[in-house]
Amino acid sequence: MSQLTLALDIMGGDHGPPVILSAALKAIRLHPDFNFILCGDRRVIDPEINQLSEAQRSRVIVRHCEEIVTMSDAPAHALRHKKDSSMRRAIEAVQTKEADACVSAGNTGALLSLAYYLLKTLQGVDRPALVSFMPTAGHHKVLLLDLGANVNCTCEALFQYAVMGSVLAELMMGKTKPRVALLNVGEEDIKGNTLVKLADEHLRSVPALNYIGYVEGDDIFTDHADVVVTDGFTGNIALKSSEGLAKLVASEVKKQSASNVWSRIRARIALPLLKSIYNRVNPDQYNGASLIGLRGIVVKSHGNASADAFYYAIFQAMQEARLRVPEKIKHKIETVLLEQL
Amino acid sequence: MSQLTLALDIMGGDHGPPVILSAALKAIRLHPDFNFILCGDRRVIDPEINQLSEAQRSRVIVRHCEEIVTMSDAPAHALRHKKDSSMRRAIEAVQTKEADACVSAGNTGALLSLAYYLLKTLQGVDRPALVSFMPTAGHHKVLLLDLGANVNCTCEALFQYAVMGSVLAELMMGKTKPRVALLNVGEEDIKGNTLVKLADEHLRSVPALNYIGYVEGDDIFTDHADVVVTDGFTGNIALKSSEGLAKLVASEVKKQSASNVWSRIRARIALPLLKSIYNRVNPDQYNGASLIGLRGIVVKSHGNASADAFYYAIFQAMQEARLRVPEKIKHKIETVLLEQL
Repeated sequence: MSQLTLALDIMGGDHGPPVILSAALKAIRLHPDFNFILCGDRRVIDPEINQLSEAQRSRVIVRHCEEIVTMSDAPAHALRHKKDSSMRRAIEAVQTKEADACVSAGNTGALLSLAYYLLKTLQGVDRPALVSFMPTAGHHKVLLLDLGANVNCTCEALFQYAVMGSVLAELMMGKTKPRVALLNVGEEDIKGNTLVKLADEHLRSVPALNYIGYVEGDDIFTDHADVVVTDGFTGNIALKSSEGLAKLVASEVKKQSASNVWSRIRARIALPLLKSIYNRVNPDQYNGASLIGLRGIVVKSHGNASADAFYYAIFQAMQEARLRVPEKIKHKIETVLLEQL
Repeated sequence: MSQLTLALDIMGGDHGPPVILSAALKAIRLHPDFNFILCGDRRVIDPEINQLSEAQRSRVIVRHCEEIVTMSDAPAHALRHKKDSSMRRAIEAVQTKEADACVSAGNTGALLSLAYYLLKTLQGVDRPALVSFMPTAGHHKVLLLDLGANVNCTCEALFQYAVMGSVLAELMMGKTKPRVALLNVGEEDIKGNTLVKLADEHLRSVPALNYIGYVEGDDIFTDHADVVVTDGFTGNIALKSSEGLAKLVASEVKKQSASNVWSRIRARIALPLLKSIYNRVNPDQYNGASLIGLRGIVVKSHGNASADAFYYAIFQAMQEARLRVPEKIKHKIETVLLEQL
């Protein structure tokens, strides 16, 4: 396999460069088939990468940037006034084909705007979508999109998400005919808002997709579908509210475990059990939302990602680069559009 | 306190009358300050209530009905063609003031239509909303609305939900100035879809409400707000997807506990811990979504509620009857509307 290149925005995220760099060093050590472009402040990056061997170091380029997109920067401000930000440089590396993918844990709105502006969407795609894996009760994960790239959504956008999600499930999960579903408030045909009903009708007319109809919120996790499609507003709320409940369970485990000496003993004994359950639903390992529909690969990490979680996002970007996801999406969209003629 | 009356739809729900009747008997035994109108098939109800003492039996009226609204009945069909259904009879008892509240575990769409048609909304309320309590990491629960009564929502509707939710939090949770928030995809002012931005502007102009701005999906569970307001489509997805994650955790506990002999022993020892955690997030105890904004009290139980869960829904209806919720909502809406003049 030929060498691939990953660009990383070192300055994004709530915990600052050390956490991102720790994940980056891990990726550099574990993946010799990748080169890395580290975008950020050289004074922060250089001391850290000195830990690498000479061979590892030879796969790393440090791209010094003077600016940082902050969490409070409006997307338009980041776009117009921060031409030398680490986030922009990472995306530009993808734009110029110097890199095959990029990852950032910075300001989501700014990342979306910059990626959209610099990379442009694929032909047939109006707007990119944010997509992520979620856990299910079955053996497989499920893809949920859009997670918030597009909060005022159209029927056409939902249709495009379905096509893109199907390609991703095929490539990343090895599914031959991924089951694609629309998220709705009831499984009956009469239910749902106007947008969802229109999209349902449209999706039923496309033989190239294995469209299975509606699923409800709780069915995201029951392995009913491989791809669950919804607008960015609803998808973001579904993601965050289920994450919120997972965090509530984790905080209850902590609280209850510490309530008295018996609970502490019980908790100690149960620890491996609790850990293996938590590992199944831990949002960290589902970190890395891909921005798909663009002419290049952009992966967004949670702002508050730990080093482990950021590594998952890097891993996700590497997989997409290896599988050449944008090219495959382009091909599928052409097929579906031809079918529609 | 004077005697109050509760009407129950005995025939609704996935598990049939036995489960509903078991919860009804518990309520009859535990709450001597309530009379009960049991609506349904006399041949099913009579043998069960024979278990009651004579004094308890004297507080029960059996209202025989020939029809049942099934889960697959279209709301319009239930409304026009099932004039003698147990669901309709229960709501009619509220309409005629014979009962102070009613509870059903039947077809949600039909219940909404029948309640809306028979009871009408309060002045100043366009559409009723479904509201339920959810767990939080704090000492208090949180109210989430709308959970699906109104899937094509307007800015005015969101505003009315905020007023109604605030009253409910005040009455049912004893909060003096309940914190009311709008569910959104980000806490920043620039984020959100058009509907949410308009509602935000409107809510900021009302001193009678303690409006605190936006919260994200994960903040439903963090005790940031007492009332979280959203449209029925999003609210239903937030509710169901967090329930789905809770069920996934429960199923993982079961699976992991049974994986080998050590796990089984660990699970046995950890059981009290796991139970007390599960009790905090168990959707059953949050069963009972109130349909508010009507000139009467209607509580909707989950279709697949267990007897315990259905009892929670009954308990919820009793509380609302004792607190005369619709009257208080009417009063608050008048106050807010006057303020707007």
